[in-house]
Amino acid sequence: MRHTLGTIAEKLRGRVLGDTSVSLSGIASVSSAAAGSLVFIEDANNLERALASPAAAIIVGEFAANAAATKPLLICAHPRLAFARAAELLHESDGQLKTIHASAIVAPSAHIGGNVAIGPRAVIGERVSIGDESTVGAGCVIGDDVEIGAHCRLDPNVTIYSRTTLGHRVVIQGGAVLGSAGFGYVRDSQTGRYEPFPQVGQLMIEDDVEIGANSTIDRGALDETRIRRGTKIDNLVHVGHNVQIGQDVVVAAQTGLSGSAVVEDNVIIGGQVGIADHVRIEAGAILGAQSGIPSKKTIRGKGVVFWGTPARPIRAYLKELAFLSRSARKAGG
Amino acid sequence: MRHTLGTIAEKLRGRVLGDTSVSLSGIASVSSAAAGSLVFIEDANNLERALASPAAAIIVGEFAANAAATKPLLICAHPRLAFARAAELLHESDGQLKTIHASAIVAPSAHIGGNVAIGPRAVIGERVSIGDESTVGAGCVIGDDVEIGAHCRLDPNVTIYSRTTLGHRVVIQGGAVLGSAGFGYVRDSQTGRYEPFPQVGQLMIEDDVEIGANSTIDRGALDETRIRRGTKIDNLVHVGHNVQIGQDVVVAAQTGLSGSAVVEDNVIIGGQVGIADHVRIEAGAILGAQSGIPSKKTIRGKGVVFWGTPARPIRAYLKELAFLSRSARKAGG
Amino acid sequence: MRHTLGTIAEKLRGRVLGDTSVSLSGIASVSSAAAGSLVFIEDANNLERALASPAAAIIVGEFAANAAATKPLLICAHPRLAFARAAELLHESDGQLKTIHASAIVAPSAHIGGNVAIGPRAVIGERVSIGDESTVGAGCVIGDDVEIGAHCRLDPNVTIYSRTTLGHRVVIQGGAVLGSAGFGYVRDSQTGRYEPFPQVGQLMIEDDVEIGANSTIDRGALDETRIRRGTKIDNLVHVGHNVQIGQDVVVAAQTGLSGSAVVEDNVIIGGQVGIADHVRIEAGAILGAQSGIPSKKTIRGKGVVFWGTPARPIRAYLKELAFLSRSARKAGG
Repeated sequence: MRHTLGTIAEKLRGRVLGDTSVSLSGIASVSSAAAGSLVFIEDANNLERALASPAAAIIVGEFAANAAATKPLLICAHPRLAFARAAELLHESDGQLKTIHASAIVAPSAHIGGNVAIGPRAVIGERVSIGDESTVGAGCVIGDDVEIGAHCRLDPNVTIYSRTTLGHRVVIQGGAVLGSAGFGYVRDSQTGRYEPFPQVGQLMIEDDVEIGANSTIDRGALDETRIRRGTKIDNLVHVGHNVQIGQDVVVAAQTGLSGSAVVEDNVIIGGQVGIADHVRIEAGAILGAQSGIPSKKTIRGKGVVFWGTPARPIRAYLKELAFLSRSARKAGG
Repeated sequence: MRHTLGTIAEKLRGRVLGDTSVSLSGIASVSSAAAGSLVFIEDANNLERALASPAAAIIVGEFAANAAATKPLLICAHPRLAFARAAELLHESDGQLKTIHASAIVAPSAHIGGNVAIGPRAVIGERVSIGDESTVGAGCVIGDDVEIGAHCRLDPNVTIYSRTTLGHRVVIQGGAVLGSAGFGYVRDSQTGRYEPFPQVGQLMIEDDVEIGANSTIDRGALDETRIRRGTKIDNLVHVGHNVQIGQDVVVAAQTGLSGSAVVEDNVIIGGQVGIADHVRIEAGAILGAQSGIPSKKTIRGKGVVFWGTPARPIRAYLKELAFLSRSARKAGG
Repeated sequence: MRHTLGTIAEKLRGRVLGDTSVSLSGIASVSSAAAGSLVFIEDANNLERALASPAAAIIVGEFAANAAATKPLLICAHPRLAFARAAELLHESDGQLKTIHASAIVAPSAHIGGNVAIGPRAVIGERVSIGDESTVGAGCVIGDDVEIGAHCRLDPNVTIYSRTTLGHRVVIQGGAVLGSAGFGYVRDSQTGRYEPFPQVGQLMIEDDVEIGANSTIDRGALDETRIRRGTKIDNLVHVGHNVQIGQDVVVAAQTGLSGSAVVEDNVIIGGQVGIADHVRIEAGAILGAQSGIPSKKTIRGKGVVFWGTPARPIRAYLKELAFLSRSARKAGG
């Protein structure tokens, strides 16, 4: 679909300085822009470079409202957000019919919605339901009794264990494993051997959740693991059994959450963070990369950044680092 | 199969207070219990809640032997262990015949035991042997000359490289990769380029080992990587080439063991621990989450908890943290 | 193919002490050597053990030039490198014809080079090109418009997203995911919800790069992610969008590189290292295991080892650790 700057501006509720009839073919960065590209900048320092690029138009903030511009400008309150939304409009697929590949193996009892795509070699188990407009990539294995909502996208080679539930608009990237058995054993004190504790619960993933490549999310032991609406999880993240993650939480790559951890809404978690079992991270806290929260601790403080292992408020932690560096230099002197 | 509290009690060698003829349909947590559920509690504080639930019966310890109970109680020395075993009895499959899916690709030279299940699209290489009652999930790829024992369970999309050996009752969760080439290179000092060191060894996994989703275990370089009887490994764990892990070791999620590390029996390793090359962890040591053991070090101390990087006994480490916090506060004052 | 010590010595440009006509069947470690094995040692201490083994011949350094040897010795300047190269010669396949398995699904528009192997159930998308002598393992999913050079090896169950480019002699181990969408969102300050920032860039992997099992490499957001010639990446490593990794870099297992990080040539990165967004690691630096580099920092120092979080030169870091340990002991007095 071909768009003009004017139609995009209308949908983004921005105002155009210059020619609204410019035709746009897609989005790009300033450095990779071609004729027809829509680009964005977030401060006045980059305006000159953007104007010198071959881009057709530039999304800017109010900071550029009085600039002498040789290209049309689209002024928006939040240029990055406007650019992200413009990208969706410009790259929207044109409603082509999706198909179920002949090599996919779909159980007869599965219920497949309208305009669903199922890739080559995907395996869909008994009584699975898949909502309208969803896509299941090549090589995915979907266990029995899984529910997948509408407008979901499962990339290739995803594994979903039986009885997992996904809401609408959920995105799962390649190789992720959802609903695997949690890590729970009971040691027989007489033999010293570990015996499996039952892992018969479920995994519930709510609307608009996204999960990165090769991440693993265990199902509940007796109850459920739940990831709430809008939470975004990066690659190679581990979520243990019975974990509860709130709404609009961000979890960066290679972080691990142990069994029964609770993360409330709007928390931001950096990469390689370790959250032990039965920890609670209260709403709005921010955990710096590689920090560690010991078993059963509660982290409290909306907007407060925590860092280190055991995690403490970053101000205190930086003071400790400075004291240590100073003292060691002195002592070593 | 339908069980009564009496038949379960007999198999667990527990004693029943109350009606032994109660019929049980499965296990549950107290909060998710339904009529027919068997639940367990580990201390007297939870007895009232369990009695108020819809559960049919409760596994308890001796602490409840004199309680006024409105439900039948099953008294066991170790309620959690008894519950785990009851779960196996109650959820035991009823011996249904397993099948090899028509879409599986099984090499003619493979030797498949009795009552083996092979899922859709699984690929079984030349001269593979699979023992009785084992299950290979959809999308698994089993290389040539792999040996898999009896009663094993491989979940979907597992990859096993050629010549890997698995004992009996081994469980491998979805997406795990076993027997991949280790990370070994030799640098040519003249060109500065890395050339691969041969990775022609094997991976041996002994009986009752369990390996979590998307974990990776490399084969030996020239010799073997070996994981001994009863060891349990969580999700996203990395085990390098030539590593030796003893019996009944527990390794939590996202931990990594570098090449030629040795872990003796009964060690407990937390999540995100890093064990460098040629490290030795002696029997019974406990490594706290995120701790790190530098190259070639030995960790010694049965039942001693080590923490930090480089890992030290936790008492010493906590003293250091306390000193640092105190001193920095004072200095900053 | 059968080799003698003489033909191997000629190719390695080493000199033989003893019988050059000895026939070699393969390489081995000293402890696993059989009759016909070629082994190597790097110092004189191991010579006696090697001579006592059943090996047919031993690669040694000049240190053994005057030894009284009961087996033929092959003297090379760099025994480990010579052994690695001997392994390639001895284990070279004898040019057997590779085939495309009947169950592979290859798009008609794909261009497959000469003597390419494609394993069972692999899926090759539209307009993919695969160079001569390359191998694609069972269960791999290769998206549309992917380019794969000559002599590449993709192990089973690898996922490659659309438009990714691989050079020649690239090795990708099982379960790795290449070209997935990066972790980029824009928060709408009014609703508090995260919306996806466009991830429409590419992933470029240059010649001789090797990537370990279950690693994940994201494509660029608007531009590209690039891994340059000769870089080796271990298992379970995460590489974020827009990352640039130079030539001959080594990255050990479970390390993570966040978005837009730059790693220059010849850097060595240990296991479980965390590199935040927009970090620059200058040429030749060495990052110790588990170290962490905060956002936007530059690490400089050819041959200097950095350790800790935030990473500092290891000498300073070890002094801090020593000071802390000493002071805490004293204070705890």
